[in-house]
Amino acid sequence: MVMVRFMDVHTGMQGITEEALKAAHQADVDIQADEGVDFQKAWADPDSGKVWCVSEAPNADAVRRIHERTGHPAVEVYPVPLEV
Amino acid sequence: MVMVRFMDVHTGMQGITEEALKAAHQADVDIQADEGVDFQKAWADPDSGKVWCVSEAPNADAVRRIHERTGHPAVEVYPVPLEV
Repeated sequence: MVMVRFMDVHTGMQGITEEALKAAHQADVDIQADEGVDFQKAWADPDSGKVWCVSEAPNADAVRRIHERTGHPAVEVYPVPLEV
Repeated sequence: MVMVRFMDVHTGMQGITEEALKAAHQADVDIQADEGVDFQKAWADPDSGKVWCVSEAPNADAVRRIHERTGHPAVEVYPVPLEV
């Protein structure tokens, strides 16, 4: 399976705590194998309520489905083939 | 100096290549010490033209000034105190 790197963006998570971010990430990791996704990193800004996740996945819909099942759908998912 | 992690976002970079991303990142790194910034990672989507950078810096304006001087201003800069 060809894996592609993705950057996805969540909004509306104002006030998110370190514990909540860890729990959300772990929930994704717990079921990511169902779609062949590998969630690698996430960053959160509790003030703006934005969260960004970097993953590797077969396609963007696989990323979307995992995030939807764990209750925090991504509003945007971008392939990011370039990295430095 | 207290350092904060930032996620910044660029738009309008449709068609960006691996070489161009590396060159842009290196241009930032070359002058980042002027503002006490440490640019760590960048990801690009040539189709949407979006680029995301993670850095550590004293404040968001320091990040903005480096990106402006190197000719690729960030349209958004967010503190991301939470990371997983």
